[in-house]
Amino acid sequence: MSTAIAFTPSLPSAKVIHVDTRGAIILSEESPETRDSRGIYLPNHIEPVSHIAVDIGGSLAKVVYFTRSPDPPPSPSVVATRGSSTASEISTPRSVSPSEISVPEDPPVRSPSPLSGGGRVSGALTPLVLDQQQQQQQNTHTDSDSLSSTLHDNLLRHTSFSRPRNFPGGSLNFERFETDDIDACVAFIQELISRSAEVNGVSIEEMRRSVKIMATGGGAHKFYELFREELQVEVRREDEMECLIEGLKFFTMIPDEVYYFSDELISSVSHHQPVGTTNASTVDGPSTSTPTTTEPQPQLQVPPPPQLERPSPDPPKYGVTFESNPTPQLPCLLVNIGSGVSIIRVDEDGSFERVSGTSLGGGTLWGLLSLLTPATTFDEMLALSEAGDNSHVDMLVGDIYGQDYSKLGLKSTMIASTFGKVFKKGGTQRTFRPEDISKSLLYAMSNNIGQIAYMNAEKYGLERIYFGGCFIRGHAATIATLSYAIRFWSKGTKRALFLRHEGFLGSIGAWIRNIDSEESESRD
Amino acid sequence: MSTAIAFTPSLPSAKVIHVDTRGAIILSEESPETRDSRGIYLPNHIEPVSHIAVDIGGSLAKVVYFTRSPDPPPSPSVVATRGSSTASEISTPRSVSPSEISVPEDPPVRSPSPLSGGGRVSGALTPLVLDQQQQQQQNTHTDSDSLSSTLHDNLLRHTSFSRPRNFPGGSLNFERFETDDIDACVAFIQELISRSAEVNGVSIEEMRRSVKIMATGGGAHKFYELFREELQVEVRREDEMECLIEGLKFFTMIPDEVYYFSDELISSVSHHQPVGTTNASTVDGPSTSTPTTTEPQPQLQVPPPPQLERPSPDPPKYGVTFESNPTPQLPCLLVNIGSGVSIIRVDEDGSFERVSGTSLGGGTLWGLLSLLTPATTFDEMLALSEAGDNSHVDMLVGDIYGQDYSKLGLKSTMIASTFGKVFKKGGTQRTFRPEDISKSLLYAMSNNIGQIAYMNAEKYGLERIYFGGCFIRGHAATIATLSYAIRFWSKGTKRALFLRHEGFLGSIGAWIRNIDSEESESRD
Repeated sequence: MSTAIAFTPSLPSAKVIHVDTRGAIILSEESPETRDSRGIYLPNHIEPVSHIAVDIGGSLAKVVYFTRSPDPPPSPSVVATRGSSTASEISTPRSVSPSEISVPEDPPVRSPSPLSGGGRVSGALTPLVLDQQQQQQQNTHTDSDSLSSTLHDNLLRHTSFSRPRNFPGGSLNFERFETDDIDACVAFIQELISRSAEVNGVSIEEMRRSVKIMATGGGAHKFYELFREELQVEVRREDEMECLIEGLKFFTMIPDEVYYFSDELISSVSHHQPVGTTNASTVDGPSTSTPTTTEPQPQLQVPPPPQLERPSPDPPKYGVTFESNPTPQLPCLLVNIGSGVSIIRVDEDGSFERVSGTSLGGGTLWGLLSLLTPATTFDEMLALSEAGDNSHVDMLVGDIYGQDYSKLGLKSTMIASTFGKVFKKGGTQRTFRPEDISKSLLYAMSNNIGQIAYMNAEKYGLERIYFGGCFIRGHAATIATLSYAIRFWSKGTKRALFLRHEGFLGSIGAWIRNIDSEESESRD
Repeated sequence: MSTAIAFTPSLPSAKVIHVDTRGAIILSEESPETRDSRGIYLPNHIEPVSHIAVDIGGSLAKVVYFTRSPDPPPSPSVVATRGSSTASEISTPRSVSPSEISVPEDPPVRSPSPLSGGGRVSGALTPLVLDQQQQQQQNTHTDSDSLSSTLHDNLLRHTSFSRPRNFPGGSLNFERFETDDIDACVAFIQELISRSAEVNGVSIEEMRRSVKIMATGGGAHKFYELFREELQVEVRREDEMECLIEGLKFFTMIPDEVYYFSDELISSVSHHQPVGTTNASTVDGPSTSTPTTTEPQPQLQVPPPPQLERPSPDPPKYGVTFESNPTPQLPCLLVNIGSGVSIIRVDEDGSFERVSGTSLGGGTLWGLLSLLTPATTFDEMLALSEAGDNSHVDMLVGDIYGQDYSKLGLKSTMIASTFGKVFKKGGTQRTFRPEDISKSLLYAMSNNIGQIAYMNAEKYGLERIYFGGCFIRGHAATIATLSYAIRFWSKGTKRALFLRHEGFLGSIGAWIRNIDSEESESRD
């Protein structure tokens, strides 16, 4: 894995981003449920932190808030990122019982309430005035600089520590709720505010006067009145697309936030997925059916082969590479996969436009699988898919032609018709395994999104395609399918990029936009 | 309806097409089952007709054969096309029990066996030598010219006549079988050959020596040996894509074969579909949910409005316009929707390339609906969809935002997430009407195909997009959705075009290719 340990990335032009992300560290997870909601520690960030951001989508409401942690850490080893984590560790919403596949090296973790104990209580929302003095303090934090540098050295190791300790600066915290259960979200924020009042020794009314909620997503409009009435704080509505882009720009600055599949073969990220055999054919294509061989592949680093085409009957187990030394990645295409899909092009200067989308998104897959399988949660559905063989329900090129249609660049294992084997006239119903159905539809939705994403990237001449939204959930097959689709259609010229905090682009963007506005206010 | 009655279209350069399509007439249907398999009478075509073409796809095997009819017709009124037919008349495969919605003016029709009685027996396969003499006869057929001209005048009227009479020239006949039941197809061809031997007064062995089968589609490879062994005739395999393009070029020369939705509002083509209200908004979009008003609209011809944008919450009931005076329509994009979808660009000179495709095709829709609804045939599924309201299962823009997202050109009735309302966490299962499920998925598949088709048309600078394959089946909602998707994405600059014999492009193309090769042979 080619992760460079260059500690301090140069700051982007500060026009838009006012959060000092130097030395940012993604904190170790607190529970399997919160794997993509793990906090981000920002050692050098000191800000007025009296606001909470919420992004309310069709299915999920995502919350971001910052908590201050004023004391230095006792030892460098206590916190490390999961920079070397495999993608399958990334999580599920907190309200769902954890059921994903455990990866061997995972230490046992506990599931604390987000507002209990340790750094979080003492780091409750605290209004703090931003002034020159503190900025100077930032510039002289050489101790914490070398500290953070040591922490960075720990990048590839993880610990059993599960609770953020007290650091200078503070942490970004992430939570998720179901939009159908928006009252739970409101109650959570209510408690956040009361706790903060308590810790800061002020009345709730006074706390409310300094707290602001930045709301984005469709629900910002739909639930505006509810939030205002229940929480009795100022609620600002922010444009969804603008927040998404702000969030994207922010997250791409966090080391080890962005990752992608490299061209190196490694062993399966999931126990259930049989390893495919490589194939000497020169035709590439989105791989589809589960092969029947089950040779385990040893963990080794294979140097990238000279050619890009790497055919295989099933998604090969490529290594996940983390972007440890991030720089702004514009222009790019952002594909936000929520209930539905929005496709946004972002220019070099940060201006953007929603250019496309599709209604076949996460909501479609979960909806179909909820009716077609016994699964009742996202993770059950994904687990089913890992054990499936889509060739039992899909019609492959080989089923129709009996051979490769090589003249057209089609391989016999490629999917000609999703679910093409299911319908039989005369009403004779066969039964199909939920595992096979799940795999087929996961492939279908992912390949379709990948294809439409690619076509838009090509249309606008963009090489980088970021995938955001709560759909991917760090699931290996999904990431592999999307990566493969982009690679196939672009003949290797474009790259699919993923974000560990994929579902929080909008909420972080909303959070950042408040910092911009507060800065303007304090200057007046 | 703006159908011009100019009788004789100029022949295309005869390099590729050797079928004399002057005066071609699409015969009245023989049964509801065979609506898109209705024969085409070619008054001026005289050919060696000892071959049968078969296109074997993933789900259906399509057969084309030519039968000669040597005697002139007794009266001009006995045969007319259905040039003014509404699209909903177009049919189902013969092996499916008819269940589509009947349109008021339809006369009762009978369902003869294709080889029984009348013109077909006397028009059995008859080898005929093509020579200069006969070509001269063609040029002096002024009687049949004015006869055909009178027949053309009958274009807009239809009769209760259901059987082709004896005309000069002959007829193209179309049949369909399920690929899963390929033996039935073989048996049919076997009978065709035996009958022909009988009618021509020759032995079966002699008949077999002069009969040739042109096979295309994936099954041409898969079933090659079967056909050879069972039928004991020569079997030639033809490239699928080449046949599709040949077939497209041929069919676009047949008057009233090609049709499209015009910009005129007419009353509903289906009794079950409530009529939408027009909307003064200037934003156009693929319309989605079924509105609640049910004002019937009178049948009238409304002159096309000056602007293309015609917003409406549901697919407006646009008039179907038939291409009565066809000319070659290249360059174009051909979107063949079978079990899966192939997208082929065709250049002005007829050269072509398969540039794209998607696995989300007819097989996907039928497969999903066979598991999610009680329907057991295509037509039952389409009938269900006509009675459905997709807003019960789909998440619309309005559901997420509570208002239009007009800044992005999104209307509150547009589908944000297909099936987005279906999944509820915690496993509480609601039940959904099969009608609503059917409509949602029909929209989803059609909109997706339309979007991908549009993107390819745009990429290659093509304005005409032909839809072939057995998916559409003349179903109004499907045609409307595809037409709308193309219109929406292209802002009205591109047009979706449909073919009445949509499923037979490949088989007709294979048939034509035999004529080419026979011509070369007879010259040697």
